[in-house]
Amino acid sequence: MTDNGSSRRERGIQSYREVMTLDPPTRSDPTFNEGLLDFVFAEVWTRPGLSRRDRRFVTLACVAAADAVAPIEEHVYAALNSGDISYDELTEVILHFAVYCGWPKGSLFTQIASEQWERIHRERGTEVPPPTPIQPLSTAADPELRLQGGEEAFRVINETPSAPARDHPYYGAGILNFVFGEMWQRPGLGLRERRLVTVACVALDDTQIPIRSHVYASLKSGDISYAEMKEVSLQFAAYYGWPKASYLASVIEEINDQLTAG
Amino acid sequence: MTDNGSSRRERGIQSYREVMTLDPPTRSDPTFNEGLLDFVFAEVWTRPGLSRRDRRFVTLACVAAADAVAPIEEHVYAALNSGDISYDELTEVILHFAVYCGWPKGSLFTQIASEQWERIHRERGTEVPPPTPIQPLSTAADPELRLQGGEEAFRVINETPSAPARDHPYYGAGILNFVFGEMWQRPGLGLRERRLVTVACVALDDTQIPIRSHVYASLKSGDISYAEMKEVSLQFAAYYGWPKASYLASVIEEINDQLTAG
Amino acid sequence: MTDNGSSRRERGIQSYREVMTLDPPTRSDPTFNEGLLDFVFAEVWTRPGLSRRDRRFVTLACVAAADAVAPIEEHVYAALNSGDISYDELTEVILHFAVYCGWPKGSLFTQIASEQWERIHRERGTEVPPPTPIQPLSTAADPELRLQGGEEAFRVINETPSAPARDHPYYGAGILNFVFGEMWQRPGLGLRERRLVTVACVALDDTQIPIRSHVYASLKSGDISYAEMKEVSLQFAAYYGWPKASYLASVIEEINDQLTAG
Repeated sequence: MTDNGSSRRERGIQSYREVMTLDPPTRSDPTFNEGLLDFVFAEVWTRPGLSRRDRRFVTLACVAAADAVAPIEEHVYAALNSGDISYDELTEVILHFAVYCGWPKGSLFTQIASEQWERIHRERGTEVPPPTPIQPLSTAADPELRLQGGEEAFRVINETPSAPARDHPYYGAGILNFVFGEMWQRPGLGLRERRLVTVACVALDDTQIPIRSHVYASLKSGDISYAEMKEVSLQFAAYYGWPKASYLASVIEEINDQLTAG
Repeated sequence: MTDNGSSRRERGIQSYREVMTLDPPTRSDPTFNEGLLDFVFAEVWTRPGLSRRDRRFVTLACVAAADAVAPIEEHVYAALNSGDISYDELTEVILHFAVYCGWPKGSLFTQIASEQWERIHRERGTEVPPPTPIQPLSTAADPELRLQGGEEAFRVINETPSAPARDHPYYGAGILNFVFGEMWQRPGLGLRERRLVTVACVALDDTQIPIRSHVYASLKSGDISYAEMKEVSLQFAAYYGWPKASYLASVIEEINDQLTAG
Repeated sequence: MTDNGSSRRERGIQSYREVMTLDPPTRSDPTFNEGLLDFVFAEVWTRPGLSRRDRRFVTLACVAAADAVAPIEEHVYAALNSGDISYDELTEVILHFAVYCGWPKGSLFTQIASEQWERIHRERGTEVPPPTPIQPLSTAADPELRLQGGEEAFRVINETPSAPARDHPYYGAGILNFVFGEMWQRPGLGLRERRLVTVACVALDDTQIPIRSHVYASLKSGDISYAEMKEVSLQFAAYYGWPKASYLASVIEEINDQLTAG
């Protein structure tokens, strides 16, 4: 069979079914047909090099950041209904996302996660399991020990020899005390998964230094390979647009050159 | 009659009626009265140098990016109801916008476009025409020819002698294969209109290199003049705020200096 | 003298000098002249009803969110150089902003704050004072007490009878444990100032429920009056665009109606 237009549309529909766990709606607009089906589903989601599960972490961060209610609902449903991501993992993704993209956006994401989780159980005729009770913090309660733990986690996770000085509230009370002192160290979501969410978040926020530092740490640690990271940038481009992806793609090349030359 | 406050308000109300195709609501807050009527409608939309139709492309991209439901509804309605932009053009604007600002935001934009198109026909007592059938792609289906076409379109549209290497998925599978290999080459929306949407999208995304390259290509190609581009930046400032417009305005000056010095 | 164009421009220049603590640059584009000078400086910053200091909190959040380097530099410089906001207050603003709009954007904001603080001291020929050492947390270290403190602060600050359940990490580990358990309770920035920053952050993030809850709490507590809040919305419109301000303005009206009817 030749690779003509109709077979491409068929591949898009098939990919949509697999990813979204539903049949695509019948639509007549080019955004959906030529854009989403023919390109995003037929040609991005189907690529080897990054698993469907991994592509979901990037996509979830993008739809949540865009505040687009229907896409958040659809992708949350698909992530849970496919079994690719567990509900407890999703709730950690939301916390991680809220820290990187702000609590206001996390609020809608949380609400939609609960609603879609209920919808899935309703469709299956099963009971929604009781929520997992809040886990005791795995990190020190003592403020000084917590800061020290945050400094150590900052160095390890960022693959950097030094942590920032504590004397700026952004760093002392924020980054060291909470973001690295607690949040990144939480169980329930792997470091690789946290990196996928983070790379999407810093890329959509497009502040240059965090993009560089998280791409560097992801590649340097080996948690995400160079080939995978290039797929992350394509997935991100599809879900947050080419302008922001352009900088991410150029940083990936540059950091990879630097790491392979070193 | 002197140009005092009351005549300015009158000009704002008159401009609102012409642009929005409806009477303004009665409001008591300064955001609407002193801001939107006295400035945005009285003094931005009424400026010569960029047509009302052209200002709509910039504005539609801004309201869609801002996820503000009511402004999207109002500006989509006004664009269609005034006859300034046809429904088929609007659907191409949405596809172009979705590619530049991400599919999640395109989803709401699409939904609102359908709703407002129905509203207009309901108000007029006419039938919504059947959707325009999907057009055959004007570009090659063969993957290699499609990539080659994308490289050529990239060079022509960006006014640049070379296209990026294919070996990064962001470029090969994304930019060359789809964004320039198909999307920019679609009939149904002119190149000038695509540039207006794109400049607004890259400006609100505030990634530096895409802003520079699209302002450069728009001016260099002559599709948008320097005088028009300055109006684009003011229109953008009104709808996406001064901080981001400030960078766009400075890039326009710089690129114009470079082009006129050459 | 009549209120003609030149007196308005003069008012804009004078206002620019007072707000930005520098002479405006000479520019020829309408974004700067007809937009920023004639409207934003002549007609927004000069309005009574909200102090210049208060307008700065809204503006700083907007420019930081927009990632526009030059505007962040200019407004940080102006806030500090005018004496309207102290450096220690600014660092708390940055932490608060980072929590609401994400750490990546906070990183650039922090860096620029340090640079502009050094610039001011260099211009004055004075020494940059040593940074204020990190203060001991004023809140409980014990995880259970911290959560309880977060629940109490959530109720008081949000003017609501109940706090969210702890069993979702977004709420348990994030909102209750850190955002209300520590951040909002920090000394160094008043509750009114934190509300001004927060309203700007939730408005630019455009998620509906947080906008409503923070506008409600600000008005209900009396920390920000209805008349002041309307000025917040105009200031926000100038710095983040009308589409997002339009929703904020409509929520303010609705909540005020609800509170005055009660």
